[in-house]
Amino acid sequence: MADLKTYIKKNQDLINGCLTRILDEFDRDRILIRAMRHSLMAGGKRLRPILSIAAAQACGKDFRPALPVGCAIEMVHTYSLIHDDLPGMDNDDLRRGVPTCHRQFSEAVAILAGDALLTHAFTLVSDPGSLFDDYPDEPVRLKLISKLARASGLHGMVEGQMLDMQSYSGSRDDALDHLKQIHAKKTGEMIIVSVESGAVSVSAQEDQIQSLVGYAEKIGLAFQVADDILNVEGDPKILGKAVGSDRAHDKMTFPAVIGLDRSKKFARSLVAEAKDCLSRFDAAAGPLIQIADYIINRDH
Amino acid sequence: MADLKTYIKKNQDLINGCLTRILDEFDRDRILIRAMRHSLMAGGKRLRPILSIAAAQACGKDFRPALPVGCAIEMVHTYSLIHDDLPGMDNDDLRRGVPTCHRQFSEAVAILAGDALLTHAFTLVSDPGSLFDDYPDEPVRLKLISKLARASGLHGMVEGQMLDMQSYSGSRDDALDHLKQIHAKKTGEMIIVSVESGAVSVSAQEDQIQSLVGYAEKIGLAFQVADDILNVEGDPKILGKAVGSDRAHDKMTFPAVIGLDRSKKFARSLVAEAKDCLSRFDAAAGPLIQIADYIINRDH
Repeated sequence: MADLKTYIKKNQDLINGCLTRILDEFDRDRILIRAMRHSLMAGGKRLRPILSIAAAQACGKDFRPALPVGCAIEMVHTYSLIHDDLPGMDNDDLRRGVPTCHRQFSEAVAILAGDALLTHAFTLVSDPGSLFDDYPDEPVRLKLISKLARASGLHGMVEGQMLDMQSYSGSRDDALDHLKQIHAKKTGEMIIVSVESGAVSVSAQEDQIQSLVGYAEKIGLAFQVADDILNVEGDPKILGKAVGSDRAHDKMTFPAVIGLDRSKKFARSLVAEAKDCLSRFDAAAGPLIQIADYIINRDH
Repeated sequence: MADLKTYIKKNQDLINGCLTRILDEFDRDRILIRAMRHSLMAGGKRLRPILSIAAAQACGKDFRPALPVGCAIEMVHTYSLIHDDLPGMDNDDLRRGVPTCHRQFSEAVAILAGDALLTHAFTLVSDPGSLFDDYPDEPVRLKLISKLARASGLHGMVEGQMLDMQSYSGSRDDALDHLKQIHAKKTGEMIIVSVESGAVSVSAQEDQIQSLVGYAEKIGLAFQVADDILNVEGDPKILGKAVGSDRAHDKMTFPAVIGLDRSKKFARSLVAEAKDCLSRFDAAAGPLIQIADYIINRDH
């Protein structure tokens, strides 16, 4: 895993540099920019743009054309966290150890900062010229926008957040399918679009893209199952939050629905299936394989 | 004005038909769709998409390619109203005589419905194929997305909402410039992009587009000045809301800053300048001219 650690650190630095440049286009004293910076630069893992980069590389291409959409996806991800934390939603005070956007600024500023991040993501993909040296041609950028809007809107993330808030009234037998459905929408579609956009940005072949989408479907779900497991048996010191909170809130989780042992087996089989999807790729897919393993072996 | 009334009614019906088709793509029982429909179909004037249509026609073209972006702009406008009404922002209970989205549903649903409307606007412009018979080519759609994202984000509307919420601490002499600046961002940029997108959608000539942008800058500001005047001396029965509320809330308005008479003169001169921008257009620009007059002669 030493390789992966270096790989992740290098790309996190690269992405953080891009995101800083994006914000530095604007007057840094503007309150909206301060609020956007507060949440965007609060130490996220950058998993989504790293997946975009790794997918482009897996296809044997230079990753740089994938950076604009990778950064846009990270901005969409951050907006969703800001709105999710609002008093009218989850009402959280802390995120990654720092005050949530509405606690640091105000509810109004947090709503608008989220709106601005979402909107600016589309500026970035449609018009990356002033900030990025390399970016896809116009028809590819249009395709990326269509995919990003679908993954983050009614077809994906926003609907997933809605489903997650509604209480489940179905049978016990259907609970696992319902849980999979929530995660497929809430986090899965954005993981898929992260991987897919990386490959689309570098004009990969259609069969490569389809294999990568298969990979992304599996790791997206594995990530969520692993999260639920960590909430049961993780180390609160390393995790940065209390364990057992899902159970305390009577949240529908994989361990709650199918038990802890079956959840672990399920996560492992998903990762194996994800790696199978990459069988036709060469060594350039190494980081994607290591990321799949990392997802179920991480401690936070 | 009889002509204009017919023109507006016909195009409102057309736009409402398109917006209904857009929502009908989704299961109508979904709570997000119900919330979006509640706010989107609450009887808006449809001024923005009508401006897109009228601008396309002024350039001597069939207006139909302008419908996708016109509907997208109306969705962005509606999302901004939903978020503006939230308890953390203006905390309004009523909008156009019906409960605001968060009063009818919940705060969480209203936040997500706004997010979904904003996101879906970009789906609509990038990928209009399944819903519209006619739409612009790919490079034009990309240009429209770039313009819409700029007008509604950090360069325009979201920043305007932020400015509008901050209290003004400048001198009395600078107050008029500050007020113009708020409106230029908060509503002006979206009016400009409505007109400009109509012309861009039908591939109008660059000098036509520039004249139309000039027109839009003037009527956008005139619209806001007229709104402020109506809040002082409108008929509350026709207006559908109390008059004098701006003054009661000590809001910065044109009548408050430069007086009622000067505000009226200012609105009239803006409309005259707007019409001057159209001097090189033929009779096809008739609706745009009538809309400019209507903006300062309306009673609601």
